[in-house]
Amino acid sequence: MTCEIIAVGTELLLGGVANTDARDISQGLAETGIRCYFHTTVGDNPGRLKEALRIAKGRADIIITTGGLGPTCDDLTKQTVCEAFGLPLELHQPTWEKILSFFKAVGRPVTENNRQQAMIPVGGILLENDWGTAPGCGFQKDGLWVFMLPGPPKECRPLFQNCLMPILRSFSDTTIASRNIRVFGMGESAVEDRLRPLMEGSRNPTLAPYAQEGEVTLRVTASAATKEDAIALIDPMVSKVTALLGDVVYGVDTGALEEVVLTLLNSAGVRLAVAESCTGGLVSARLTSVPGASKRFLGGVVAYARSVKETLLGVDGQVIDRYGMVSEQVAAAMAEGVCKATSAELGLGITGLAGPSGDGSETPVGTVCIALCDARTGVATALTRNFGDERGRIRNMAALTALDMVRRLLTLPGILC
Amino acid sequence: MTCEIIAVGTELLLGGVANTDARDISQGLAETGIRCYFHTTVGDNPGRLKEALRIAKGRADIIITTGGLGPTCDDLTKQTVCEAFGLPLELHQPTWEKILSFFKAVGRPVTENNRQQAMIPVGGILLENDWGTAPGCGFQKDGLWVFMLPGPPKECRPLFQNCLMPILRSFSDTTIASRNIRVFGMGESAVEDRLRPLMEGSRNPTLAPYAQEGEVTLRVTASAATKEDAIALIDPMVSKVTALLGDVVYGVDTGALEEVVLTLLNSAGVRLAVAESCTGGLVSARLTSVPGASKRFLGGVVAYARSVKETLLGVDGQVIDRYGMVSEQVAAAMAEGVCKATSAELGLGITGLAGPSGDGSETPVGTVCIALCDARTGVATALTRNFGDERGRIRNMAALTALDMVRRLLTLPGILC
Repeated sequence: MTCEIIAVGTELLLGGVANTDARDISQGLAETGIRCYFHTTVGDNPGRLKEALRIAKGRADIIITTGGLGPTCDDLTKQTVCEAFGLPLELHQPTWEKILSFFKAVGRPVTENNRQQAMIPVGGILLENDWGTAPGCGFQKDGLWVFMLPGPPKECRPLFQNCLMPILRSFSDTTIASRNIRVFGMGESAVEDRLRPLMEGSRNPTLAPYAQEGEVTLRVTASAATKEDAIALIDPMVSKVTALLGDVVYGVDTGALEEVVLTLLNSAGVRLAVAESCTGGLVSARLTSVPGASKRFLGGVVAYARSVKETLLGVDGQVIDRYGMVSEQVAAAMAEGVCKATSAELGLGITGLAGPSGDGSETPVGTVCIALCDARTGVATALTRNFGDERGRIRNMAALTALDMVRRLLTLPGILC
Repeated sequence: MTCEIIAVGTELLLGGVANTDARDISQGLAETGIRCYFHTTVGDNPGRLKEALRIAKGRADIIITTGGLGPTCDDLTKQTVCEAFGLPLELHQPTWEKILSFFKAVGRPVTENNRQQAMIPVGGILLENDWGTAPGCGFQKDGLWVFMLPGPPKECRPLFQNCLMPILRSFSDTTIASRNIRVFGMGESAVEDRLRPLMEGSRNPTLAPYAQEGEVTLRVTASAATKEDAIALIDPMVSKVTALLGDVVYGVDTGALEEVVLTLLNSAGVRLAVAESCTGGLVSARLTSVPGASKRFLGGVVAYARSVKETLLGVDGQVIDRYGMVSEQVAAAMAEGVCKATSAELGLGITGLAGPSGDGSETPVGTVCIALCDARTGVATALTRNFGDERGRIRNMAALTALDMVRRLLTLPGILC
């Protein structure tokens, strides 16, 4: 089966927002094994929407529209789709009663527009929207299935996942499963170079890389009669990939690096504190984005000014003068200082030059020194990297590299258990 | 004139990434006054790309393709587009020489694929790619203009802005100008309610809202013969909007809230430090994302654990026990503490419950207390808000509200000058 996604919304054509609905729906379609060959976007214009529908009718088995269901756009999508398929709309009584009782409760008058929201195509189904006001709907006609979803991603995504995905899965007699291998510390092209023979030679399972800044996720996907059969196809590929990539693989089906680090801190029973200069709070912000981080992350110091490094972290001014602000010595002193200040067992110290301009010394922009200190042994390890010349990337890579240092320390056999 | 954007890339149809190229190009088209009625996405498939081209030829004056120019996909887009328009490819000598000398310099052999990258349609123009390896190109045929851009957003965006936008601007005899009004502290629907008469009654200039989490940007756009004429149409609308919205407008054509705060700190000649609990470094990370932040932002303390609040910020344990961890008293003590610890003139203290679970007290999840202390007068102001039940939103709204408190203090007449 093939599916075409038609997004309706002038804001998409004006460049206000990217079409993330099409991405989210496509991801779901890939999981069900339904092929998606086209995305189309049109504005809030019945004529052009009809044209897009006419073209899609000739080349797809399923059409999914997003957008144009809200109260301010006069149900453009529902009206136009029903006209294109020669289907009248009828009142969906339970939805209409729900709307009536809502307006009664808040004491506001019901308008004709609100009644429109309770209309669905004759013989169609309602996709109840628990995440917003405009429900979705669907119908089967002329050998096609048509589904209409609301446009706001916060409504479209859960409605698609919870209401439409079960229907789409029922269209297919195969099950798709996938596992995600998460990689940090090797660039996308290096990962692809190393895995190219595996990627090119594989049909079921497939192996596909997805790069975000600084990270690569490899998705292994297989289709089979049952989920167990699919996993049995996937797991040997996961083993091959991890063997080829080595310790840059930080997890399989795990969350982001900060989640893995917090899990490892939990297992080891140690607490972490962070002293940040060039990353300015990014490492702390990542760690505290994870619910329950407070169990193992104490906090730390954003030591942006030299004076803060000296007073709050107790970094010796002579060390700064001698080795420079961006040096492994200062990073180590920051890491030791934040352990002392917070009583944490592990401390990170990060100092670097995020640019765009230099600091007057010979240190090039992009240089970052990171140290990790174990307060129980007094041992600090440090490294120096250069992450290029783009401020956002330098800071992000420094934060990820710091987290990865903690991961590597905590996965070294025998060190902390 | 009308333009259609055709994206080429199977990864878009598999849901790996959202089509941000179409958004970026559409934004530029809107600025030039060229109308964009359709976006289409196809996979790396010559047959379906030809079908999309055939449809676009019948309804657009300009076609812009993105993607399919890289070395690993055999120049799918260039070949297919040229076949669809009956144009042969020819070697672009300067580009070919550039490639040859690059490979000579790195000592690697040149392949047939590399030669493909130097081919452009006969009679066409080359769009030099200073941000990646695959150049773009364009030609005029059958009354249409066709341009091909690389797919990776980091190449597509600058190539479009720097090479294609000047060409597109030359197609139009009107100039489009716009100004952006930035708003924090009023929700999108409240902003729209208040501005609806202005928005609906305006054709030139137009007024359009764009919402990001917690913020709204209002774009006023006008077209006229000259830029000056367009601005003359825009400015009265900007005045009307600011008069209607009041002090939730934090800037016109400015950067984000953190940039405005740093500019205000600069003008006032005061330095800021931040003590963060529930935001866990987000305020510091936002401030330090701005180049030159170190002039006015000293750093601070991420006081995630109670012990860090007491030791590094000197918050009295009895105050915590008496008023609770999430209280205006603790926020004020954190703000005062971070001023003392860093010698900053202004200090922010943020404590809250980001959830998902509560802290055992009666404080509901989503509650955040923020205090701002002026160390020179000893005066601290504090507020309490509830930002709902979603961890990411609570933290983000708390960070923005804290920055907005600083902005409001620094724009109060007579307080700091």
